[in-house]
Amino acid sequence: MSKLRLTISMSLDGYVAGPNQSVENPLGVGGEQLHQWAFELAAWRAPHGLTGGATNASSAVVERRRAGIGATVMGRNMFGGHPGAWTPEHPWRGWWGEEPPFHHQVFVLTHHARQPLRLTGTTFTFVTDGIESALDRARAAANGKDVALAGGASAAQQYLDAGLVDEIDLSIAPILLGGGERLFDNVGDDLHGLTLVDVVGAPGVAHLKFAR
Amino acid sequence: MSKLRLTISMSLDGYVAGPNQSVENPLGVGGEQLHQWAFELAAWRAPHGLTGGATNASSAVVERRRAGIGATVMGRNMFGGHPGAWTPEHPWRGWWGEEPPFHHQVFVLTHHARQPLRLTGTTFTFVTDGIESALDRARAAANGKDVALAGGASAAQQYLDAGLVDEIDLSIAPILLGGGERLFDNVGDDLHGLTLVDVVGAPGVAHLKFAR
Repeated sequence: MSKLRLTISMSLDGYVAGPNQSVENPLGVGGEQLHQWAFELAAWRAPHGLTGGATNASSAVVERRRAGIGATVMGRNMFGGHPGAWTPEHPWRGWWGEEPPFHHQVFVLTHHARQPLRLTGTTFTFVTDGIESALDRARAAANGKDVALAGGASAAQQYLDAGLVDEIDLSIAPILLGGGERLFDNVGDDLHGLTLVDVVGAPGVAHLKFAR
Repeated sequence: MSKLRLTISMSLDGYVAGPNQSVENPLGVGGEQLHQWAFELAAWRAPHGLTGGATNASSAVVERRRAGIGATVMGRNMFGGHPGAWTPEHPWRGWWGEEPPFHHQVFVLTHHARQPLRLTGTTFTFVTDGIESALDRARAAANGKDVALAGGASAAQQYLDAGLVDEIDLSIAPILLGGGERLFDNVGDDLHGLTLVDVVGAPGVAHLKFAR
């Protein structure tokens, strides 16, 4: 069966978003530092429609994480923007513009029903009946490939706590955020059989891979 | 000047001791798992008077961390055992027996005055006038060598928050403890110029080194 692979960047003090998240500051105060190591890479910039960038030990990690992914699941806060029901006054279409970098189906966990949003190469489907339903639908859409779990903290915690995550690709950014959303809150002390299988050091980041 | 080097093991969820620490359970529930990677090493066992053990990618890390250390600072909870004043009814002499593995002077941060405790190769001196005093005294005792900061969480936090830590040797154990004492609580978002300079993967652990 296709795997559910959580890919996420965490600060040294355990946060995957900084304090005071908002539409203007989707990663919270200082949260963009979590991804600084990636923003600089050609391997990250190209799929986001940007030119240039560096190649270093993180490049192969980014390429490997992207390979074999056929669909993505994410939480409502990662899709953004304002909280609550989707309304004509808030026609939120995600942070990624008209051509999001996914190029496959994305399933967004939400309490508020909404029709699918079809953009160039990516369709966002809004799932209101829980994490297992979203995973089932993503697996079907992935058509044998793996499913990426893109965050944020709450979505990651729910899948981790349910033991549904097959691999974690964790990038530890060497910074402190001092507050925000912690990845491993609300998940107890059980990694559900996940063990550390690979460690890669690269400029400004340590990549830890966990698998069964 | 000699450096202050913090060496500590932390769980994936940020804890350096598990919940419910006690004299019987000094590392808290599950806390011994933080050090499992070390217990198995010949490089760790020999200085603790134990024979056997493995050699792997952690061995050189352990040797490097031990090299050049001339004195140690630790918090009262790391020295143990019961809280409060030292009394004849509680003649606590540390966790390490009559020949502790330090073989140099150890300065223990405490609110309760006590005469130095001289054991084979190691003298514990109890410092009641603060972290800077303890560091000054340790530096003098180290005689040009570096000073190890051995933890626990509160001692580490106080030195980190004061910007007095020159290097962190952080071992991340791939486990969750779900509660306990967090290393990076109470230190804000400032690493005081410490950056990630080395990453080593080894069986059951990821070693991250930070320096200025």
